Amino acid sequence: IERLVSRVWRFLEKAWNLAVDDPRKVIHCLKVGIALTVVSLFYYMRPLYEGVGGNAMWAVMTVVVVFENTVGATLCKCLNRVVGTSLAGLLAIGVHWVARQSGENLEPLIVGASVFILASAATFSRFIPTIKARFDYGAVIFILTFSLVTVSGYRIDKLFDMAHQRLSTIIIGTSLCILVTTLICPIWAGKELYVLIYKNMDKLANSLDGCVSQYFDHGDEKTDKEDKALLGYKCVLNSKATEDIMANFARWEPAHGQFNFRHPWKQYLKIGASMRSCAYCIEALIGCIKSENQAPEFIKKHLRNTCLIVGSNSSGVIKELAKTIKTMKKSNTIDLLVGEMNSAVQELQNDLKSLSCLSNSDSPPFQEESETPGNKKTEKPQKATATIPLMGVISVVTFASLLIEIVSRTEAIVKAV
Amino acid sequence: IERLVSRVWRFLEKAWNLAVDDPRKVIHCLKVGIALTVVSLFYYMRPLYEGVGGNAMWAVMTVVVVFENTVGATLCKCLNRVVGTSLAGLLAIGVHWVARQSGENLEPLIVGASVFILASAATFSRFIPTIKARFDYGAVIFILTFSLVTVSGYRIDKLFDMAHQRLSTIIIGTSLCILVTTLICPIWAGKELYVLIYKNMDKLANSLDGCVSQYFDHGDEKTDKEDKALLGYKCVLNSKATEDIMANFARWEPAHGQFNFRHPWKQYLKIGASMRSCAYCIEALIGCIKSENQAPEFIKKHLRNTCLIVGSNSSGVIKELAKTIKTMKKSNTIDLLVGEMNSAVQELQNDLKSLSCLSNSDSPPFQEESETPGNKKTEKPQKATATIPLMGVISVVTFASLLIEIVSRTEAIVKAV
Repeated sequence: IERLVSRVWRFLEKAWNLAVDDPRKVIHCLKVGIALTVVSLFYYMRPLYEGVGGNAMWAVMTVVVVFENTVGATLCKCLNRVVGTSLAGLLAIGVHWVARQSGENLEPLIVGASVFILASAATFSRFIPTIKARFDYGAVIFILTFSLVTVSGYRIDKLFDMAHQRLSTIIIGTSLCILVTTLICPIWAGKELYVLIYKNMDKLANSLDGCVSQYFDHGDEKTDKEDKALLGYKCVLNSKATEDIMANFARWEPAHGQFNFRHPWKQYLKIGASMRSCAYCIEALIGCIKSENQAPEFIKKHLRNTCLIVGSNSSGVIKELAKTIKTMKKSNTIDLLVGEMNSAVQELQNDLKSLSCLSNSDSPPFQEESETPGNKKTEKPQKATATIPLMGVISVVTFASLLIEIVSRTEAIVKAV
Repeated sequence: IERLVSRVWRFLEKAWNLAVDDPRKVIHCLKVGIALTVVSLFYYMRPLYEGVGGNAMWAVMTVVVVFENTVGATLCKCLNRVVGTSLAGLLAIGVHWVARQSGENLEPLIVGASVFILASAATFSRFIPTIKARFDYGAVIFILTFSLVTVSGYRIDKLFDMAHQRLSTIIIGTSLCILVTTLICPIWAGKELYVLIYKNMDKLANSLDGCVSQYFDHGDEKTDKEDKALLGYKCVLNSKATEDIMANFARWEPAHGQFNFRHPWKQYLKIGASMRSCAYCIEALIGCIKSENQAPEFIKKHLRNTCLIVGSNSSGVIKELAKTIKTMKKSNTIDLLVGEMNSAVQELQNDLKSLSCLSNSDSPPFQEESETPGNKKTEKPQKATATIPLMGVISVVTFASLLIEIVSRTEAIVKAV
């Protein structure tokens, strides 16, 4: 029993932390509560209840099912629900009419067949990617309403009234939802996406900084905070699904805050993708840090300064881009920073040349050299690992060139905003 | 109008291709149709209809909402629905009883407050990750049933009967769904996961092969097929979300085929994660292939053979692992292959040493060297780019060491299977 109590306690503690971390979640919960309480007023007030003919249930149901965290998601579901219901209702009434005309015996057959065919077709449409992204819920509601209306049409006579009442209750429910989500502390999917993107950019820049400095300073006095910053790129790697969902919902949202209705949300996805390709590079860098073969100190020292400069320059560019996205104004300093970064990269390449120069000046005879390593035995272990820093360094170069690509891409975006 | 027609035509064509690609999707659609038609029999047969007191609607609804593509997902939703409904129903009846006892005036207040509190709490619980993964749908159903029952309890007198009928219709609907999904061409989430994993492994191996060979053979006669194989690693990168969902559903499934009930699905996620880290390396390799700085031919030639051997060895290991997972039997040759791969890596490292050896034997004076490049002008452009192949090569080495890590991990898994 004690273990159970401690477990429940831990669970509650976790939940509490979650609530403290993001108070908007609590607000969302309260919003659901408010919407539900308002909608249940339909039951308590006799005139309202009579008005919708006892179908108030559907309004409650709509609120529960449709209410989502972000405005975009709620709007999307609402539209899907209303359109799906009315389309299915119309079709069902049509089918019902045809079935009625064709006599007592054929009626169940026709109804059954139509349910079978349309349900299969609608289910299939849910597999088509473009429909899945936007109208998945609508297809479900279509099947639901169609089968309910056609099938119950067999037993209930006032079909048209029923359909009409259902639709009106659903519209009441959806409009209530829309009002509550947009008026009480709205959470916009678009804004979430925008915040996610620029926060991820900052994290990426911090990771890069941490990564480069740890590579050269051996991370003797690692603090927890630094470690956390270092792992920031993992967020970037894993946020693809969230970005896609957000961008999808953001399209449904009306103008809000700094965003217009036709804000180029897809650009954010592109930025996200290029950030992810950067993050892959950081992953490779981290691999270098962890690898057992470490470079000898003197080589590291030689490259240390240039590398640190390249690292800090490119993370500076990313940070500047994050700021650009944040303020949605073309930054004045970005060109300068990119230029600085490029020259730093150039310098680094020169440094590398000075290293590799030596390695290749007499590369044809190197096979003989490797066959007679005895005479250089003492230095060998150092040399064996000497190739490794090159990788770290060249990763930085690749990284930087990737960055330049990203910079050019994001500049286009900055203009688009 | 013509454009509309051509658009519709293209759309239909796409849908047709989708159906041909994966006929199981069509089967799934037919299954939905069958389940719905069977459930609507409740309306056509008078005795059945009377039996559930006109609440057959709920059975239809359950089928539409609960029926999913894989057995695991359907089972998960069914259990969530049944448990959520019964829990909420019991609670609601309790609240209703309390409210009744406390007099006419307090009743709507108590009911309203309970709806508000419980709906908020349940919504909040949906944010907690562990609950979100498994009981998200249950929480929605809980809110739905609870608010429906408590609120309509205010108007409907035979509350207990209603709750009982709802529950029984839902159970009818869910059991029908479970029967149809498991008996007619079942699609098991577990098997999907398993197929996904070993196909991804194959793709990864092909990508690696293609990548290494393209790097050294300049990809002059690129075929479309090769290009496709090369991009196989992208599937690996993007399949994280699918894997997570599948593994989540797979846990709900009973024993089927070669899988027991408590099959270690989490191991598949681990394999997936390590494959992804491999794929990051391939991404870096592709970066090398595309980079403008290409290595001079003679260096490439020198390293070509060893690299190709390392590449083919490691892809051989991956393929062998895929086979191991496919047949779920410990492979006899895997140790041998890993050994071969390791020795190939060793050889490659030796080759690299023979290169780097020269670069560092006199590294202290290299600054002077780089300041007087005039005497070697003719060779300079070649040397400038000489560092680049090192990166490609060392990526292969990193890759191989990653592979070794993966091999050791997967061997543990093979034992677990």
